[in-house]
Amino acid sequence: MLLNIERLNEMMARNGLDAIVATLPENVTYSSGYWALSQWVRRGPQSYVLIPAAGRGEPSIIAATSLVDQLADQDDVWISKVYRYGFFNVDRTEGVELSALDQRQLDLYSLPDHGTAINALCAAINDCGLGDSVIGIDELGLLPGNFDEIQVRLPNAKVKPALEVFRTVRAVKTPEEVNRLRRAAQIAEQSIASALEIAKPGATERELGLAFHRRTASEGGYPVLGCIGSGPRSAMPNVEPGDRKLQYGDVIRFDVGGRYRHYRADIARIAVLGEPSKQIRQYHHALHIGVLTALEMIRPGVKASAVFDAAVKAVQREGIPHYKRSHVGHGIGIDGYDVPNLTASNDILIEEGMTLCVETPYYELGSWGLQVEDMIVVRRDGVESLMSTNGALTILEP
Amino acid sequence: MLLNIERLNEMMARNGLDAIVATLPENVTYSSGYWALSQWVRRGPQSYVLIPAAGRGEPSIIAATSLVDQLADQDDVWISKVYRYGFFNVDRTEGVELSALDQRQLDLYSLPDHGTAINALCAAINDCGLGDSVIGIDELGLLPGNFDEIQVRLPNAKVKPALEVFRTVRAVKTPEEVNRLRRAAQIAEQSIASALEIAKPGATERELGLAFHRRTASEGGYPVLGCIGSGPRSAMPNVEPGDRKLQYGDVIRFDVGGRYRHYRADIARIAVLGEPSKQIRQYHHALHIGVLTALEMIRPGVKASAVFDAAVKAVQREGIPHYKRSHVGHGIGIDGYDVPNLTASNDILIEEGMTLCVETPYYELGSWGLQVEDMIVVRRDGVESLMSTNGALTILEP
Repeated sequence: MLLNIERLNEMMARNGLDAIVATLPENVTYSSGYWALSQWVRRGPQSYVLIPAAGRGEPSIIAATSLVDQLADQDDVWISKVYRYGFFNVDRTEGVELSALDQRQLDLYSLPDHGTAINALCAAINDCGLGDSVIGIDELGLLPGNFDEIQVRLPNAKVKPALEVFRTVRAVKTPEEVNRLRRAAQIAEQSIASALEIAKPGATERELGLAFHRRTASEGGYPVLGCIGSGPRSAMPNVEPGDRKLQYGDVIRFDVGGRYRHYRADIARIAVLGEPSKQIRQYHHALHIGVLTALEMIRPGVKASAVFDAAVKAVQREGIPHYKRSHVGHGIGIDGYDVPNLTASNDILIEEGMTLCVETPYYELGSWGLQVEDMIVVRRDGVESLMSTNGALTILEP
Repeated sequence: MLLNIERLNEMMARNGLDAIVATLPENVTYSSGYWALSQWVRRGPQSYVLIPAAGRGEPSIIAATSLVDQLADQDDVWISKVYRYGFFNVDRTEGVELSALDQRQLDLYSLPDHGTAINALCAAINDCGLGDSVIGIDELGLLPGNFDEIQVRLPNAKVKPALEVFRTVRAVKTPEEVNRLRRAAQIAEQSIASALEIAKPGATERELGLAFHRRTASEGGYPVLGCIGSGPRSAMPNVEPGDRKLQYGDVIRFDVGGRYRHYRADIARIAVLGEPSKQIRQYHHALHIGVLTALEMIRPGVKASAVFDAAVKAVQREGIPHYKRSHVGHGIGIDGYDVPNLTASNDILIEEGMTLCVETPYYELGSWGLQVEDMIVVRRDGVESLMSTNGALTILEP
């Protein structure tokens, strides 16, 4: 199961919630295993998950009729109670015995049609006897006006925003989530290796980008983040691969990562085409030490802000005295920025099971950008890396 | 330019708007050419575009400081006035003359920091002297509460929801948009061809899916939609490629399409591994005639509902008497479902320059799913296909 249900129950109790409703695609998939295609690839389509507090009723999924077939086929889905809404026609062959898969679909299509997503959600809440309780609703996935409409439709309930509850729960990963994140990180590393295979003088950034995404797709990943810049273009934080041709001495910066079984990667590595200058070596070393310092320090109970301070000071001490950053990392999971952010002001405590991107990017217009970014999971005594490579500078024979 | 600015001005005038604000990623990119990475790959990050009505001021882009580098490098961007918000540090090499690209970035980083996205938007509106005017705001891309907050911050303005204005404008494409859609459709066709190359008995759906997405990535597209199902699984509308092995006689249904330079494809084709049954031939022929009937009928001034009726009746007449559908197609563009939907109740008139997916899917549990879906652009006298292949059944030698 993707969902950390113990933590969800704990957070619901702590926030005085009798039930919680997921509305953003990442929270719907996270809490139920249901990946509703339209909701992920467009803005607007609505799917929800209702999870009552322990002992308060059975969880349910609210889905458009046109998307219930995915409930029948997705192994991740652990919730069987479904409320569907909207018209969608599927026929069946008369006189033929249906496979288990087809029968599951037919059963879903045969459920009553609740007309609209909000109708279906209110029915699910009322059927659990939760119409007079405190309901937390992930406010960011709803359409404008829906939140107030739900409160009007459930006059005896108290409806509260609950996006932050989901974000807090998601911060501590289940073993299945860690497995997917590890694979996502590996695919990103393999994709960098494929791009570097063609990194010769005269090759374009665009060609490296195509090789990168082609490998991601070949490994069963979905391309998402593909910042690949060479020479001075590597100083652009969000550089998109362009027509610039690689030259001898170029820095090539990768800040990249796709999605694997819904889970994100976000890693960074640097290669140099030929012999790096002394300054590149020194700066990259300082940035790498910054990441290693953070990794040595991260363990349950440490403040995020303390990790930030230690990493930034290490980089400053090791070779970039003017180093300045907004953050030195962030959580990663089904969203590319999970809790916590590693910033100067975030005093949240690191917990066992959090997965983090730890990074020390440095962007210098007129020269280049350098960056090390690793993915790790927090264990009882420190960190376990999700990487197969280390963050050292890669030196390519031109 | 992606934006149909004449149509936008016309729609602003018709709706009594003095300015309009894009907030959804598709509307931001469409109206300004600016593709703000974080906004596209996550839910929450905010970028906006303010476009005053003709003669009411200069358009502007509101962007996070961490994303302004993309404004300096993206050829599509035609708006030069920028309001940035938030802290993000980028250094520069002292004593080195900067390239034009680096200088553009430096200029953007040197703009005043407006703190928050809403502050920056309100400053942009006030700087145009629009603080007491009627402002249409694309309500779906904002964070909860932002819409009301903008009204409070601009007490003399009247703020109105304007998502539908953007959707109406986007329905009629500019030549550049049509070019991208054509290429997106071709990439989908090429990707189907790559998947079919390995479609032999014993190959899995998953292998076909990998071949499909690999080809899309190789052609510079981003994988999005990849419904590929075989045998009875082809009857699942949103089938995800699984471990089922292809068998002699299988229907293979593709309902697929990636993104190319931000523009979507959505097409469908059917292959049969070996000799199709008489019923498959007859049903597929009926569905194909349904699409062809719609294509013959589509021209400026025709009602969407009339197209729906004609297509459904043609399918019924040609071999599937019980054929029933929610729609027979939809607009396509930077979003996978642009205006108009081709439904029984939609009396909107087809216009020159609209781009449509025209489709007649048929799903039969216990047998298979069949579907033809073509992408076209509406011209003065009819349709121009964006496809390189036709919708005929592909018969594979097993």
